[in-house]
Amino acid sequence: MAATLTEQELDEIYVFAVQLGKDAGKLLLEAAQLRISGSGDQTVQSFTEKDNAVDIVTKTDEDVEQFIKTSILSKYPHHTFLGEESYSKSTTPSSRPYLIPSSGPTWCVDPLDGTVNYTHLFPMFCVSIGFLVDGAPVIGVIYAPLLNQLFTSCKGKGSWLNETQRLPLMRNPVPPMPKNAPQGCIFSCEWGKDRKDKKDGNLHRKVDSFLNMAAEVGGREGKGGMVHGVRSLGSATLDLAYTAMGAFDIWWEGGCWEWDVAAGIAILEEAGGLVTTAKVPMNPDTAEIEPVRLGGRLYLAIRPSGPGEGETGREGQERTVREVWKRVRELDYSRPGA
Amino acid sequence: MAATLTEQELDEIYVFAVQLGKDAGKLLLEAAQLRISGSGDQTVQSFTEKDNAVDIVTKTDEDVEQFIKTSILSKYPHHTFLGEESYSKSTTPSSRPYLIPSSGPTWCVDPLDGTVNYTHLFPMFCVSIGFLVDGAPVIGVIYAPLLNQLFTSCKGKGSWLNETQRLPLMRNPVPPMPKNAPQGCIFSCEWGKDRKDKKDGNLHRKVDSFLNMAAEVGGREGKGGMVHGVRSLGSATLDLAYTAMGAFDIWWEGGCWEWDVAAGIAILEEAGGLVTTAKVPMNPDTAEIEPVRLGGRLYLAIRPSGPGEGETGREGQERTVREVWKRVRELDYSRPGA
Repeated sequence: MAATLTEQELDEIYVFAVQLGKDAGKLLLEAAQLRISGSGDQTVQSFTEKDNAVDIVTKTDEDVEQFIKTSILSKYPHHTFLGEESYSKSTTPSSRPYLIPSSGPTWCVDPLDGTVNYTHLFPMFCVSIGFLVDGAPVIGVIYAPLLNQLFTSCKGKGSWLNETQRLPLMRNPVPPMPKNAPQGCIFSCEWGKDRKDKKDGNLHRKVDSFLNMAAEVGGREGKGGMVHGVRSLGSATLDLAYTAMGAFDIWWEGGCWEWDVAAGIAILEEAGGLVTTAKVPMNPDTAEIEPVRLGGRLYLAIRPSGPGEGETGREGQERTVREVWKRVRELDYSRPGA
Repeated sequence: MAATLTEQELDEIYVFAVQLGKDAGKLLLEAAQLRISGSGDQTVQSFTEKDNAVDIVTKTDEDVEQFIKTSILSKYPHHTFLGEESYSKSTTPSSRPYLIPSSGPTWCVDPLDGTVNYTHLFPMFCVSIGFLVDGAPVIGVIYAPLLNQLFTSCKGKGSWLNETQRLPLMRNPVPPMPKNAPQGCIFSCEWGKDRKDKKDGNLHRKVDSFLNMAAEVGGREGKGGMVHGVRSLGSATLDLAYTAMGAFDIWWEGGCWEWDVAAGIAILEEAGGLVTTAKVPMNPDTAEIEPVRLGGRLYLAIRPSGPGEGETGREGQERTVREVWKRVRELDYSRPGA
């Protein structure tokens, strides 16, 4: 079925997806405004008396997903829809097989990424809408309404900020990866939800990895990466968007689901970025750098790169991937069939 | 001299400071736009051929500070001016005594906070302008031009986002601190520049502290704080602004200079937040919670809080301070005379 999508059809889906992202973001913003007004506002009285902040956010999450799902299936009844809310209710994480059908037009949606930020009204939250053909992300729409930042892409048409600025932002020329990467790089990572204080658990593997990336060169038994900065925003989706923008050089994460990353991968790849696995290979210096497998749950992304001294942009990205592999530990996020 | 400032004079200074912040932010944005256009743009050809990104940013930093300094001293020739760029050139960190005169109107300015972000065009950078009377911050202006977020305050007149939304954003009512804080809190912290892999050095003290705040309750030998989220933006100034907004619950940092925090402290305190020292007292449960000493270099800030069950907002903030003190390690940032 996918093979039958004409360029015109894809264009039409792109226009639809962008408008859907804007509308969904507006719903998120309206619900946030209600929380700012609080119970002093008559219209939300019953809302805030009954529910706490987390209930309200959960309801917004579900309402926005329902809006997106209904909009998509009304217009494209034969497309497949995968959304975070609907899916996480019908399954437990440990029983989730790969979700993406190998063919057919598929939507992969997170109505609200950065839920904790949204609860606290920290602006780093967004709606994320990815559209896949044959299992590969071809359209991405990420909208952070409180930041007024809209990231969009369609395969072959470039990636854009607010529909006017092409990504990456610096492009005349696109800077190469730093010569001694990860030195000079902004490293983006998240603490996540797995906080078990278990020897060799994910929390400690993450902190070991963060420390290796951050420590002085020569430190950490030679693993010190002395990155320029370590950033944690609390939204995997926006981490990917800022990597596409060129603002972050490296994003490394484990545990994401398809809806967290589908749109971000579409936007990053279309901007010229590289996304592969954070699964650490036996020999990081020579292992093949495989294209990302959506659903693999372990991700490593590098920003778009121009050519540097004696290497292409792609070679600079691959060099950076290898340097990260040498410094991070493999996180424990398996899934059935993976 | 400070005591002679009338309310009308203070109002006039406030209006002047806000406009100065807007103008300075515009200069930062214009310089960023030049970098986005790159060498493809004739007007910046000579600029980008000669200099690397860091040189350009340093030049912008200095130019904007010069603009702010000249503007202030033209209008208020008898005021004292302290700026990051001018000061850091004339001193080495280890020889810097307390900078703030004990009386007299004093401006404390960071022309560009979040320099690494600015270099990478990640939007979390800002200009920070604080105005002090008798050593206490009474006016704060923080402007992040790429986010289009302007934070302002004047003692007695409230703190504001974009001159229209009063801070904290949620204020009908202002939520109390969570009952089991730091659980439920967003914890804001930075990795900073001291990356020495030295046993018991600042990097390891920070990571120990982050881990204690993040780990599950009961973990880390009872210190696990299970915060809702850990965030690192790369700008101490914006960390304070988001704490004033209520988006972050706790901000903890060491090593800041006066210009990093003067405006942020003014805005946070006027919004109802608490700022004290991150120096860990002998007995965290009973130690007095002293007002922040600008220049102390160790800071702990708590967002504005409404009353909770059986406690005032202030009591909730103090309870949170004590819970943080129990979990963080004291960082090693001394200064002469401190």
